[in-house]
Amino acid sequence: MTIIRSVFHDELEGISQSLVTLSELVSGSMAQATTAILSADLSLAEEVITKDQKVDQIHHDIDARIIDIIARQQPVASDLRALVSALQMASDIERMGDLAQHVAKIARMRHPQMAVPPELIATITAMGSAAVAITQKMAVVVATRNLEMALELDRDDDEMDDLHRQLIAALLDKPWTHGLETAIDLTLLGRYYERYADHAVLVSHRVYFMVKGEYA
Amino acid sequence: MTIIRSVFHDELEGISQSLVTLSELVSGSMAQATTAILSADLSLAEEVITKDQKVDQIHHDIDARIIDIIARQQPVASDLRALVSALQMASDIERMGDLAQHVAKIARMRHPQMAVPPELIATITAMGSAAVAITQKMAVVVATRNLEMALELDRDDDEMDDLHRQLIAALLDKPWTHGLETAIDLTLLGRYYERYADHAVLVSHRVYFMVKGEYA
Repeated sequence: MTIIRSVFHDELEGISQSLVTLSELVSGSMAQATTAILSADLSLAEEVITKDQKVDQIHHDIDARIIDIIARQQPVASDLRALVSALQMASDIERMGDLAQHVAKIARMRHPQMAVPPELIATITAMGSAAVAITQKMAVVVATRNLEMALELDRDDDEMDDLHRQLIAALLDKPWTHGLETAIDLTLLGRYYERYADHAVLVSHRVYFMVKGEYA
Repeated sequence: MTIIRSVFHDELEGISQSLVTLSELVSGSMAQATTAILSADLSLAEEVITKDQKVDQIHHDIDARIIDIIARQQPVASDLRALVSALQMASDIERMGDLAQHVAKIARMRHPQMAVPPELIATITAMGSAAVAITQKMAVVVATRNLEMALELDRDDDEMDDLHRQLIAALLDKPWTHGLETAIDLTLLGRYYERYADHAVLVSHRVYFMVKGEYA
């Protein structure tokens, strides 16, 4: 019994490590997508778009491994909860990759024009940095199950929401001179960064649920 | 063994029925949210927003029941796949409810003004109808596992994408006279309906995967 438990926990640990790997990949994508949109860098945008296939592949691989572990080990109670939570986390992180890809697609669509007007470069830069920082903290939470840190992500998400409000306010506060297409792009960009951070928060809540058996 | 299998399949059938119930609830929310946004109906918008708590509660209840079935019945192979797929479907359908709520929140935010200008009422009406129709077909796919119908949802989603393109084109084709706030609202509305339909397609793909063991 002891040996089986140990194999199980090694497998679970392996899943956590794969989730961290996936988080790092996705965080890198969002960093690159932000650079691509702020510098109208087509090849970087293409790289992010192509890399999303790798994210999807790792996601499917993690899902298959989790289902295989459940079938072989037949876990119950907290062990089963941990695996189901891991399935949901993998799905959230994969979705974060999609959102990074969406940012890159706007960069590609507008190339060689800049999608972001000069006065909003600082805001989008800050949203990109906030997205990368929240992913890195999320990865630490997944790896360490540090619940105090898990709850910090709610506050980090508030910062992203503030940046999002600043972005929308900038569109509305003065007469807008950059045309409707740019306004649409910025509305969608704001939504993508905001949703990206929302998924990171969801992942941290799932870690909390996994450890405590209830939601924060 | 026969009796245990039968109990298992009754339980799985119960989960499918709950997913159908959740789909109907969500479809009703999107229908009401569309009416609310097209008639600036505050009380209807509030109703949709409040109802989302019920959607979340049913979602959590389905999740808990699925985890309980896995723990007690220890299914393997296609039975386990069916339960994991059901977890993912419940999550998608709950997200569709969130998106209906987002539509309702725009109606509430703009009340007593209309969020949708007269020349775009037909397009948003069509997007609302397409959303309801795709959810109803999705519910039939979940209930019957009809794979031919499951694949039809891809085409239904193409129609939603066409409507979404029409909406964006209407924003860009002529000089826009409704202000930037309305343009932002319409950009987000378009995104919400499009994502809603995407999740319905994902559910139908998960039914396909559940039956075939591979993606369509």
